[in-house]
Amino acid sequence: MKSDLDRLMRERDLVAFIIGGGEEESPERNYMTHGAHIMGGLILKKVGETGVAVVSPMEIEEMKDSGLECFTFNDVGLAEIALKSGGDPLKTQLDFWKRCLDQFAVPPGRVGIYGVGMLGHYLTFFRALEKELPQYELVGEIRKTLFTEAMATKSPQELERIRVVAQKTAEVMQMAWDYLSSMAEKDGAVVDGDGRNVTIGDVKALINRALLDRGLVDQEGMIFAQGRDAAFPHSRGEADTPLRTGQTIVFDFFPREIGGGYFHDCTRTWSIGYATEEVQRSFQDVSDAFDVAVETFVSGGKAHRLQDAVLDLFESRGHPTGRSHPGTTDGYTHGLGHGVGLRVHEAPGMSHLQKEDILQPGNVITIEPGVYYPDRGYGIRLEDTFYVSEQGELISLSPHPKDLVLPLKGGTA
Amino acid sequence: MKSDLDRLMRERDLVAFIIGGGEEESPERNYMTHGAHIMGGLILKKVGETGVAVVSPMEIEEMKDSGLECFTFNDVGLAEIALKSGGDPLKTQLDFWKRCLDQFAVPPGRVGIYGVGMLGHYLTFFRALEKELPQYELVGEIRKTLFTEAMATKSPQELERIRVVAQKTAEVMQMAWDYLSSMAEKDGAVVDGDGRNVTIGDVKALINRALLDRGLVDQEGMIFAQGRDAAFPHSRGEADTPLRTGQTIVFDFFPREIGGGYFHDCTRTWSIGYATEEVQRSFQDVSDAFDVAVETFVSGGKAHRLQDAVLDLFESRGHPTGRSHPGTTDGYTHGLGHGVGLRVHEAPGMSHLQKEDILQPGNVITIEPGVYYPDRGYGIRLEDTFYVSEQGELISLSPHPKDLVLPLKGGTA
Repeated sequence: MKSDLDRLMRERDLVAFIIGGGEEESPERNYMTHGAHIMGGLILKKVGETGVAVVSPMEIEEMKDSGLECFTFNDVGLAEIALKSGGDPLKTQLDFWKRCLDQFAVPPGRVGIYGVGMLGHYLTFFRALEKELPQYELVGEIRKTLFTEAMATKSPQELERIRVVAQKTAEVMQMAWDYLSSMAEKDGAVVDGDGRNVTIGDVKALINRALLDRGLVDQEGMIFAQGRDAAFPHSRGEADTPLRTGQTIVFDFFPREIGGGYFHDCTRTWSIGYATEEVQRSFQDVSDAFDVAVETFVSGGKAHRLQDAVLDLFESRGHPTGRSHPGTTDGYTHGLGHGVGLRVHEAPGMSHLQKEDILQPGNVITIEPGVYYPDRGYGIRLEDTFYVSEQGELISLSPHPKDLVLPLKGGTA
Repeated sequence: MKSDLDRLMRERDLVAFIIGGGEEESPERNYMTHGAHIMGGLILKKVGETGVAVVSPMEIEEMKDSGLECFTFNDVGLAEIALKSGGDPLKTQLDFWKRCLDQFAVPPGRVGIYGVGMLGHYLTFFRALEKELPQYELVGEIRKTLFTEAMATKSPQELERIRVVAQKTAEVMQMAWDYLSSMAEKDGAVVDGDGRNVTIGDVKALINRALLDRGLVDQEGMIFAQGRDAAFPHSRGEADTPLRTGQTIVFDFFPREIGGGYFHDCTRTWSIGYATEEVQRSFQDVSDAFDVAVETFVSGGKAHRLQDAVLDLFESRGHPTGRSHPGTTDGYTHGLGHGVGLRVHEAPGMSHLQKEDILQPGNVITIEPGVYYPDRGYGIRLEDTFYVSEQGELISLSPHPKDLVLPLKGGTA
């Protein structure tokens, strides 16, 4: 968590880190500013000290609850820098970073680089910065970074926010279930009281309104995909698709707090009216895989052990997997889960190829086994978000029931 | 526009470009995929050829309308690469890019790098890639890039989408105006029929629902800021602030199509019930500055000329500006406008420090003069989005009236 930053900086021998980037959404920046919106500038933290933010004077009011020491561009003389460079954006940015490093007295050494930005811009910028300031070694990290490590364990305050998102998410899932179950069946299609086909777009519209009423947003685009579409794990579902009975619907739902806040991630698979025998069997396999993963969990243990157990189960039931058939698009084709926070996908990860990550108190993680058969026209996935308590228990945050068959109360129209 | 990409690549002597990045929202990637969502992989285009996308097999269905030749990770052997590298993320990504460059026969030369991603990750990745593949020169660009140039002129299809967003935006602004004008005044506060204070949060909730019903979303967080807050151009306004009469409200509204689509950008300044004399005078200055900017426009002319004319006007009326008082937070403190498209801020830009950009047919740009006086508790800004027609006319896309005083029909409660 955030209080680990200094320890993690020392482990990496960093004298400081800088979060750069422009208008892009930046989870690390949000993490450091408590969600205050800034569209540029930089955040700089020296080891052992409170961080500072240097932002546009237009944004200084937004930063007042950030917990950082805040300065404006004027405090480092940016207007003068820009005049001097004649508006040259590379020169201006170089001078801006140099002044900040100087003014906040960053000693020579290793400076960690984080944040989100335009790749080509920063390719050029970092090359120039390294040349201008040879006393600093710019340090980049891949996958297991200062921030992925810090953010992987949540503080009680973060956990509480995620809990609230989880509870609201469950309410909205229940609304979608109740809405659909109030419908009727006609010639294999789901229809409303006027005999009109109910579409994926109708359900998504209902869900989006319900989210908004609760201060949440579906920023990344929920998956509500039916039949063959459900067999492509990231197919989002076409709005005009009419819902049909006896088809699996993968509903993978990952709303977040409006304004770049915390996510919750939950998946259910529904089959309206009835489910085919094959789907029922595969659903049972996915359900068993989910239980096996939960049973395999040990606080402090390796994350990949849960994936290994799930691979064993699926393979023993005859499903191809990414281990038995690398690159397969049939069967169990993806990793078991991931951390959830200010990104929908965070550390720790649960892949059989990634053997480093451990599961520990403070983690908020998903467990989401699934099987996919595009040629047979179905996909199935079940997912809860869990947290690992201080006592090392794995506790689900996703109370929505895992029923497969969604009965139509309207009967046959 | 998109059809200029080959010309722009040749001007830069690029043999190809690659768009990298992970799960981050990536306007350049959206531009190339027609908005299909992918969470990694890469897009590669050789000069003179249709681009290719290499994506996760989970996402291949999402890409079917992208207009790109689509391949999955399996087509370049990624599962095998990952196994070979033992899950090492740097090695895996290096091998992935190498295979793509090889398989799609990119000749040695300059390769442009675009897209949005994690700065530290790509700092390390590009260093390693340059070492492994000395036959390629990785080319980064700042500000005036291949994509900022291509995206700055819109195709008729893009313009049509922006027009629709603009029209819906105006509908929602009118709803907000009508909602507020149905209220009453009590002791300087705006109250509803039950005598309850109307807050900024109430207005934003109404607006967000109305957007959703129209397929739009306020992804970046609208500004609806009152009084002193309105004097900080990027202060978003606190939800629990009760609205008061006789205070300026800066309502800067930039919704976009849901799913990472096109923006429209429009600002109005409202003063509920009445406006003070000082605010009326300053409002007239802003309104005149707006008109001067429009009158100064010449298709094919330099963009900064409009800013210069607005600076002249404001300075002649006694307002400090960023030219007369660099770094000022009083008066006219920002640039005059910017392009609008898949980013809310695009090229061309209109600053007196940036003298390069020209205005030309196909541009979609804002004109948004404003004055800000934090110590006097008010800010004022007016903004329309315009397009430049093939005939070189500057045509507003923002029909909402620019009235300052929003009268309360409910009278005094």
